[in-house]
Amino acid sequence: MNTRDINCLVPNVMPDVQGSRDERELPIHRVGIRGVRYPVAWRGQDGGVQHSVAQFAFSVALPAEQKGTHMSRFHELLESGLGPLDAATLAQLHDRMLERLDANEGTIELSFPFFVSKSAPVSGVSALMDYEVSLRADGPRGAARVALKVLVPVTSLCPCSKSIADYGAHNQRSHVTVTIEGEPMVDAAELVALIEAQASSELYGLLKRVDEKYVTERAYDNPKFVEDLVRDVAASVARLPGVRHYVVEAENFESIHNHSAYARIES
Amino acid sequence: MNTRDINCLVPNVMPDVQGSRDERELPIHRVGIRGVRYPVAWRGQDGGVQHSVAQFAFSVALPAEQKGTHMSRFHELLESGLGPLDAATLAQLHDRMLERLDANEGTIELSFPFFVSKSAPVSGVSALMDYEVSLRADGPRGAARVALKVLVPVTSLCPCSKSIADYGAHNQRSHVTVTIEGEPMVDAAELVALIEAQASSELYGLLKRVDEKYVTERAYDNPKFVEDLVRDVAASVARLPGVRHYVVEAENFESIHNHSAYARIES
Amino acid sequence: MNTRDINCLVPNVMPDVQGSRDERELPIHRVGIRGVRYPVAWRGQDGGVQHSVAQFAFSVALPAEQKGTHMSRFHELLESGLGPLDAATLAQLHDRMLERLDANEGTIELSFPFFVSKSAPVSGVSALMDYEVSLRADGPRGAARVALKVLVPVTSLCPCSKSIADYGAHNQRSHVTVTIEGEPMVDAAELVALIEAQASSELYGLLKRVDEKYVTERAYDNPKFVEDLVRDVAASVARLPGVRHYVVEAENFESIHNHSAYARIES
Amino acid sequence: MNTRDINCLVPNVMPDVQGSRDERELPIHRVGIRGVRYPVAWRGQDGGVQHSVAQFAFSVALPAEQKGTHMSRFHELLESGLGPLDAATLAQLHDRMLERLDANEGTIELSFPFFVSKSAPVSGVSALMDYEVSLRADGPRGAARVALKVLVPVTSLCPCSKSIADYGAHNQRSHVTVTIEGEPMVDAAELVALIEAQASSELYGLLKRVDEKYVTERAYDNPKFVEDLVRDVAASVARLPGVRHYVVEAENFESIHNHSAYARIES
Repeated sequence: MNTRDINCLVPNVMPDVQGSRDERELPIHRVGIRGVRYPVAWRGQDGGVQHSVAQFAFSVALPAEQKGTHMSRFHELLESGLGPLDAATLAQLHDRMLERLDANEGTIELSFPFFVSKSAPVSGVSALMDYEVSLRADGPRGAARVALKVLVPVTSLCPCSKSIADYGAHNQRSHVTVTIEGEPMVDAAELVALIEAQASSELYGLLKRVDEKYVTERAYDNPKFVEDLVRDVAASVARLPGVRHYVVEAENFESIHNHSAYARIES
Repeated sequence: MNTRDINCLVPNVMPDVQGSRDERELPIHRVGIRGVRYPVAWRGQDGGVQHSVAQFAFSVALPAEQKGTHMSRFHELLESGLGPLDAATLAQLHDRMLERLDANEGTIELSFPFFVSKSAPVSGVSALMDYEVSLRADGPRGAARVALKVLVPVTSLCPCSKSIADYGAHNQRSHVTVTIEGEPMVDAAELVALIEAQASSELYGLLKRVDEKYVTERAYDNPKFVEDLVRDVAASVARLPGVRHYVVEAENFESIHNHSAYARIES
Repeated sequence: MNTRDINCLVPNVMPDVQGSRDERELPIHRVGIRGVRYPVAWRGQDGGVQHSVAQFAFSVALPAEQKGTHMSRFHELLESGLGPLDAATLAQLHDRMLERLDANEGTIELSFPFFVSKSAPVSGVSALMDYEVSLRADGPRGAARVALKVLVPVTSLCPCSKSIADYGAHNQRSHVTVTIEGEPMVDAAELVALIEAQASSELYGLLKRVDEKYVTERAYDNPKFVEDLVRDVAASVARLPGVRHYVVEAENFESIHNHSAYARIES
Repeated sequence: MNTRDINCLVPNVMPDVQGSRDERELPIHRVGIRGVRYPVAWRGQDGGVQHSVAQFAFSVALPAEQKGTHMSRFHELLESGLGPLDAATLAQLHDRMLERLDANEGTIELSFPFFVSKSAPVSGVSALMDYEVSLRADGPRGAARVALKVLVPVTSLCPCSKSIADYGAHNQRSHVTVTIEGEPMVDAAELVALIEAQASSELYGLLKRVDEKYVTERAYDNPKFVEDLVRDVAASVARLPGVRHYVVEAENFESIHNHSAYARIES
C-alpha cells in the first residue's frame, strides 16, 4: 500500500496528505516557509511609510499527532494584504497566521533594507544611507513578543593603534547590530541614530571635502575598541524606556588583518 | 588629555591599552576574532586524517572591570600548532584558549568542508561527496560542551505531489542539518550516513545511468515532507547512544516555488 | 615632502588631491563606486511603476594624465533625483554621469528584485513571484548600449531520468538567465514570460492542490536537459524583434547531486 | 510519442538520451557542471605542495547537432586522480577533459583558499595569511590558455583624507585582484608579494604591538587612492617577464561610506 492509499481517503476532493494523522509522536518546534521575497511598506513612528523589499520566514509549531502543516496558507497571508507594517501590525499578522494555520504558536521574521536621509556634518548636503532592519514576532496566539533588530555600519578607530603610533591610527568599517524587545517599541530610525552616536564616526552616503575632514578628525578624536563599541551602545540601549531585553553585537572588519574583531553583550 | 596619556603608563614598553581598567561596569558576554580561515586536519573515529580549510571564531567572556581582551593571543593559538582535530582535541584547545586569555569561559567555533567517499548504488563507482561539518566548544574552563553539526544535502520528494498527480512528483535538493551534544561523540561520517538513510534519496558525486534509474525510483518510492524528514532524522538521532541534546533542521529548496519549506525539531 | 605638500597647492580651498596630474601614464578602464543600495522606481512598458531596492555600480574611464576621479559626484547623481527608471531614462542617467564626471565613457549597473503577479494555472489564485532584474548602460557619451538581464527561477525535469526510470523523474529548481541588447528593448515582464514558457514548468508563489497536480504533471510531460533549456530559450529570444545580442544561461541545482549542471549560448 | 520512445532505442542498454541528434541547430558555447567542491593539492614553484579545498567548474562546447553532453564524465575526471595541480598539470587536465568528452574546446575553472606564512614586520612572529587563488584553462585541445588570479586583501589609506585632516586619515581593508595570462606563469606566492608591496600596507594574520605601530605608520606614510592601487599594481605586473595579458582590480570597503570605491585596469 503506498502513500496514496493511506493518505487520500478524503472523498470527492483531492487527497489531503498533510491533514492525516502522524504516528511518530514527535512534535515539530517550527515548520513553515522561508526565503520569501515580498514588497513591504514600513511605517515609522512619524507615520511616514517607506517602500522596501523584505525576506520573510513564517513558521508554526506542529503537534505530535499532526502529519503536516498547510504550506500554501503562509503565502496566502502575504497575498491577503499586508498593509503598512510596524510592530503593532506585525503582531496582528502573527495572530492571523496562527488562526489561519490553526496553530498555538509560531514565528514571523522579516528583514529589509531601510533608508534614512542624513545631512553631511559640515556641508549639510543630504543623502540616503542604507541600513538593514529585521523584525521577529514569536510566541503564542495573542501574546507574541516582537523584537526589532538594526544593523548599522559605522567607523571604528583603534585606540591601541592611535596610542602606540607616532601618527595615524588604523580604522575600518564595522557592523553594530542591536536587537531589542520591549514596550513601547523604539523607532528604527531613532535606534540607528542612538547607535551611530556611539561609534568613532558615523557613515554617510555622500560627503564633500569639508565633511571628509570632519569625519576623519572625529574618528581620530574618538577611538573605540570593539569592546568599547558594544559597551557604549549597550549603555545607551539600556537607558531606552521600556526595553525588556537587548543584544548588542559589533564586528570590525579590521583594516590590518583579514579577519574581524567581534564582541557581544546580552542583557 | 588623549587616550594615549590615559592608557600608556606602562613603563619601558608599548602602552597596554587593552589591559587598563574599565569604568562602565558592563561585562562582555563574548569578545574575540571571527572570519579566520586556517588549514585543518580532521581526525575521524577510524583514526584517518582529512585535510580541509576551516573558518574559525574564537571568543571569551570579559569581566566588567577589564577594558579589553588581547586579540593577538587568539591567532597565536592557531600558530602554536593545532594538530589533528577531533572532539577531544578541540576541548583541549578550548582549555588552552581560556588559559592563554586568562578567561573563565569562552567559545571556539569552526566549520569546514568534509568529504566522504561513496559508492554509487548499482554500478558501485566511487566518488567523493562534500558535506559541511561544524564544531563548537563552549563553556567554562575544563568543562566545555562540544557540539557537532553536519549539513547533509539530500533529495526530498513531495508525498502530496506524488499522491495527487497521475504521474511524476516534484522533488528537489534539501539541506538536513543536525547538531548534537553528548558523550561519546558520534563520528561525522556516521552521522552523515544516518541522515542520508532517512531522505527520499541520498546524493552522490558521480552516478552512471543504472544508478540514476535507481535513485529516481528510490526517491519516488520514498516520498517525504519536510516534516517527515525532521521527524525521521530526529527519531534516528535520538537513538544514538550518549546524545544529550539535538537540533534537527531541514530546508527544501522547492522545485515548484522560489522559496523553501523548512522544519526544526529540538530535543 | 609629504603628499600634502605635493597635492594641496590649491589656494584658499581644501586641497584637490584627485584633480592633480598623474605621472604613471596608465589610463584606468573604469573607476567609480559599487555596492550602493538605493530605492528605485522601475517603469514597465505598460507605464506602471514598481518600487524596489537596487544595488548600483557607477564607473567612468579615467585618462592616463588624471590622478583621480571625483567619487562623491557618483552619489550626487543618485541624490539629484532618479525618477522612474526604464531603458530610456537609464541612458539619460548615463549621459548625465559622463557630463558630471567629465568622462568620455562609463558604465552604470543596477539590479533589483522585480515582482510579477501571476495566476495559478488551475485555481487561478494570484500571487506575486520574485525575479532579479539587472540593467547595464555602457559606452561613450550619447551612445550608451543598454542591456537588460533577467534571472528566472523555473523547474527542470531530467529527460534521461524519466526515460530510464520505471516511474518518477528527478527534477529541481533551475535559474535561467537571459541578457539582451537591442532596440526597442523588450519589457522585463514579457521576457520573464517568454523564458517561463520554455521551462519544464514555471514556478508560482502560491499553488492550491489542483495547481500542484497540474505543475507536477506539466513538468513530467515536458522534460528538459539544461542543454534543452538554453536552446529553447535562445530560439525564442532570437525571434524577438530588434535583439542585437543575447546571452542565455541555465543552471540546474540538481536534486541528485550536490553540484549544478550549467549551459550557456551566446549569439 | 513521448521522449522515452524517441530516445531509448539503443538495444540492450539503458537509453542514451544525451547521445541522440538535436534538430534545433543551435551550438552551445559551454555546457558542464559547476559548484563542485573537491580537495586539491596545489604545487608552488618551489615544489612544495599545499592542501586546500577548491570549487570547480568544468564545461565544453557542444556542436549544434548533438543533443547533450555526458555530465558524469566531468566528475569522473576528478575521480581519475588529480595529482598536484599547477599551471602545467591543469593544462593536461584540460586536454584529458576534451578527449574524454570528445569536445573541441572547453573550460576548467577552480578557486581555493591559499596560505602564505608571513613574518610580522618588527617582531618577526610568523603566521599564516589566507588568499583566494583561481585558475582557468580555456580554449581548444592542446592549446589551452591558462590564467592565474589572486585576490589579495590589503590596507588602503586615503590621500585626500590625510591631506585635508589636521590628524588621522581614513583607511580600510581593500581587495586587490590580479588576473594574468602568460608563459612562464608566475608563482601565486610571488604574485601575492608583488601586490602587497604596492598597498598602503599589507595585512598579517598576527601582529604584536610593535608590529601594529609599524603598519599604522607605514599606511599613513603611504597613502593610496583606489586609482593609485590599480596603477601601481598594474605597473608592477606589466614588468613581470612573459605576461601576455593582465587585469588589475581594486575594491576599497570604505570606512567612511557604506559602499566601495572600485577601479580596474586591463592591459
